[in-house]
Amino acid sequence: MNVSQPAAPPPPAELIAKFRKIVGDKYAMTDTADIAPYVTEERDLFHGRSPLVLRPGSTAEVSAICKLANEHRIALVPQGGNTGLVGGQTPHHGEVVVSLRRLDRIRDVDTASNTMTCEAGVILQVAQQRAAEVDRLFPLSLGAEGSCTIGGNLSTNAGGTTALAYGVAREMALGVEVVLADGRVLNLLSKLKKDNTGYDLRNLFIGAEGTLGIVTAATLRLFPKPRAIETAFVGLALPAQALKLLQISQGLAAGTLTSFELLSEISVDFSIRHGIDVRDPLQGKHRWYVLMELSSPRDDARDTLEAILTKGLDHGIVDDAVIAASLSQRQAFWKLRDEMSAAQKPEGGSIKHDISVPVAAVPDFIAAADAAVVKLIPGARPVPFGHLGDGNIHYNVSQPVGADGADFLGRWHEVNAVVFDIVLRMGGSISAEHGIGVLKRDELPDVKDKTAIALMRQIKAMLDPNGIMNPGKVL
Amino acid sequence: MNVSQPAAPPPPAELIAKFRKIVGDKYAMTDTADIAPYVTEERDLFHGRSPLVLRPGSTAEVSAICKLANEHRIALVPQGGNTGLVGGQTPHHGEVVVSLRRLDRIRDVDTASNTMTCEAGVILQVAQQRAAEVDRLFPLSLGAEGSCTIGGNLSTNAGGTTALAYGVAREMALGVEVVLADGRVLNLLSKLKKDNTGYDLRNLFIGAEGTLGIVTAATLRLFPKPRAIETAFVGLALPAQALKLLQISQGLAAGTLTSFELLSEISVDFSIRHGIDVRDPLQGKHRWYVLMELSSPRDDARDTLEAILTKGLDHGIVDDAVIAASLSQRQAFWKLRDEMSAAQKPEGGSIKHDISVPVAAVPDFIAAADAAVVKLIPGARPVPFGHLGDGNIHYNVSQPVGADGADFLGRWHEVNAVVFDIVLRMGGSISAEHGIGVLKRDELPDVKDKTAIALMRQIKAMLDPNGIMNPGKVL
Repeated sequence: MNVSQPAAPPPPAELIAKFRKIVGDKYAMTDTADIAPYVTEERDLFHGRSPLVLRPGSTAEVSAICKLANEHRIALVPQGGNTGLVGGQTPHHGEVVVSLRRLDRIRDVDTASNTMTCEAGVILQVAQQRAAEVDRLFPLSLGAEGSCTIGGNLSTNAGGTTALAYGVAREMALGVEVVLADGRVLNLLSKLKKDNTGYDLRNLFIGAEGTLGIVTAATLRLFPKPRAIETAFVGLALPAQALKLLQISQGLAAGTLTSFELLSEISVDFSIRHGIDVRDPLQGKHRWYVLMELSSPRDDARDTLEAILTKGLDHGIVDDAVIAASLSQRQAFWKLRDEMSAAQKPEGGSIKHDISVPVAAVPDFIAAADAAVVKLIPGARPVPFGHLGDGNIHYNVSQPVGADGADFLGRWHEVNAVVFDIVLRMGGSISAEHGIGVLKRDELPDVKDKTAIALMRQIKAMLDPNGIMNPGKVL
Repeated sequence: MNVSQPAAPPPPAELIAKFRKIVGDKYAMTDTADIAPYVTEERDLFHGRSPLVLRPGSTAEVSAICKLANEHRIALVPQGGNTGLVGGQTPHHGEVVVSLRRLDRIRDVDTASNTMTCEAGVILQVAQQRAAEVDRLFPLSLGAEGSCTIGGNLSTNAGGTTALAYGVAREMALGVEVVLADGRVLNLLSKLKKDNTGYDLRNLFIGAEGTLGIVTAATLRLFPKPRAIETAFVGLALPAQALKLLQISQGLAAGTLTSFELLSEISVDFSIRHGIDVRDPLQGKHRWYVLMELSSPRDDARDTLEAILTKGLDHGIVDDAVIAASLSQRQAFWKLRDEMSAAQKPEGGSIKHDISVPVAAVPDFIAAADAAVVKLIPGARPVPFGHLGDGNIHYNVSQPVGADGADFLGRWHEVNAVVFDIVLRMGGSISAEHGIGVLKRDELPDVKDKTAIALMRQIKAMLDPNGIMNPGKVL
């Protein structure tokens, strides 16, 4: 994908030497082969280039890098696990990459306060495991958890499958440590749930995709570890039925309802067809499915789940349902869900949307978007699935069978326009959890409140007057 | 209390006429008697003065007021229910008061999306009742709920007794509508739980105490209404025991643990002595008490509460406990807690602190603060109580018996200094839930990260270059 943006001038040799001195020879890479993993990304959608990748080992080194870069107007791209989906972590025009992966210390675990302070480069899965070791839950969970980092999770305000009960990444951070563009370190680390001493600066940097500063550490919230987890796979006729089941579930399970995923028949078919070891948990076929999970501190989750499903069956909402009888069966249900994105690839070109609308509007959104997309491209196959409980649907569209993939992908923006129109009409968001990056940057001014855009620009100019922090992203 | 601040010049008569025209004669008050309720507050601590109180009836009128005020450099003080505790809503130096009370429409209730859009002037209790009518819970709850407003709750990021499970006001707002200093309307209203389209502007205005703009409406989150509420009053020996009981409770009840209040013996004694119809729920005396509540969507709360208390008794943590057997008994438990602030008045002068420390540090904080305060003023009586689950203690200090009240109150800042020192050493906050206002404004630069203060000043200058929005508050 081409990204229009003024190219950054490469730093002169003597400046590269200065950067090198900050992190040490071993951690300043200029060799093309060494740099390659930092300038491309897994899906092969974005290809960047960079004269220099820096791997600082401390907040002080990050600070020194920013100070030097700011003085010499050298553009920086902060990077965590390089798993972002919108090109936010890619140096599209020769910027210097600052990889935070070596900042991987867990500075503090406090089980009485239920907090954990992690540096930016801690892998999400490592954070989850550390919490589990002390009998706590760090609930953030997403497909890339084996390689994405806490710093990236916060910079993109990651969502995932547990946001329904625990909130998005923003809500899991009590405090952050940020290096500003000029190298100043803003220490907002805090174990406090309540702190009303002035403006909320923390949330300005969370979700800013590295354009306002570099998140170097965060104090995260821990939760009680659930004792009982119960998972059901449900077949039903319509998204409207799924919405009714969601309401029944919330009424009976409240905060113990930790996941509620809506899956279209075609998304399930693709996963079964192309995923390895993916099986259909139900006997018959259904137009729609729900994968739902309850996590409870006590042993009541099974009773609650059965009560929900019984009510659903009694009201004619649920057509069929199975509760996982073992851990391996639960994992099998989730595998079907987790393989869903990858399973679209063998079906050819896929135009992706990560949208949200008010929960109540999801059924209407899917109906309207399906109609509009098929009208625009006859034979196009909408593959909606996602987090119904959050109103967040990954509304992906696979190419018509037998069509030319490149031709289809060439209509990416056309399809976007049709879908985003409906999203906006319903008071929704064109980026629910993946962010803006470069992928949606040019759409942003059309979909966002004009005054909000103006304020965002003012804030960017205020915090990064020389425009060195991840330039060309978001704005 | 005197508040140092440059006096605002009163608006000339022709300008008053222009303001009057915006809201209509009936809603522009210049008469001293009419203005009185807006310039003083319940506790009689702050006395303000104002030439003009405006009561706009719509966001458009608020916008017109700000625009005119900004053009003529007229200082404004936004006001909700006038129940704030730090002088943030008082016109200390002749500013124009903008009362938001007439913006009292509930614009939308969406039970499928679990959202409610309220204007700023909606009374908190009215919002709670509206949610209950549609079988939902709006959980924010605090002493002033019968008169405080949603706009004020958000502008001060209110906390209260349910923050443990549901979070503070900030976490209950999905979106806000804000009128900026120059009159522009920033529309961030949203029913979306997930929206990653650019910087988080919403949180900049929440908790800003009206210094960056005027919150005119908000989209609030609704929750499933609990079916079973169970409340216990517990006697125990030490705050450390209460902390252990909290951990047991969170392990067994997780998100259904909705309140966990720590009460010192003296705070309970005062409430029984001076409160009307307040009785001790337990037979014997204890050094410390816990008032805890579980709220569950199912009928398991009683079992869970009994399991918690049994474990507490078995481990020698709990000395005595009683579970409310009826709604009236539950209300009686809460009355004891609710009367606590008022019950300190008959005991003479009281120097108040609204602090938070990491939950794990609460026992050490209380021990250290008690020792330091009594060393400073022999005979002074610390009356700690508050939200242990949030690490938020109202660490109030009553004067020695028989001492001169005025003399004692004259040492307010001295006592503050001693207490705040300990708070900061423990990584705490000098204002957990009440805000800064004018009461703690002068302390803020000493306790906050220097870079954070610098950024706050830059943000203030950016959003309110003429300094008309609640000048002299926070910064």
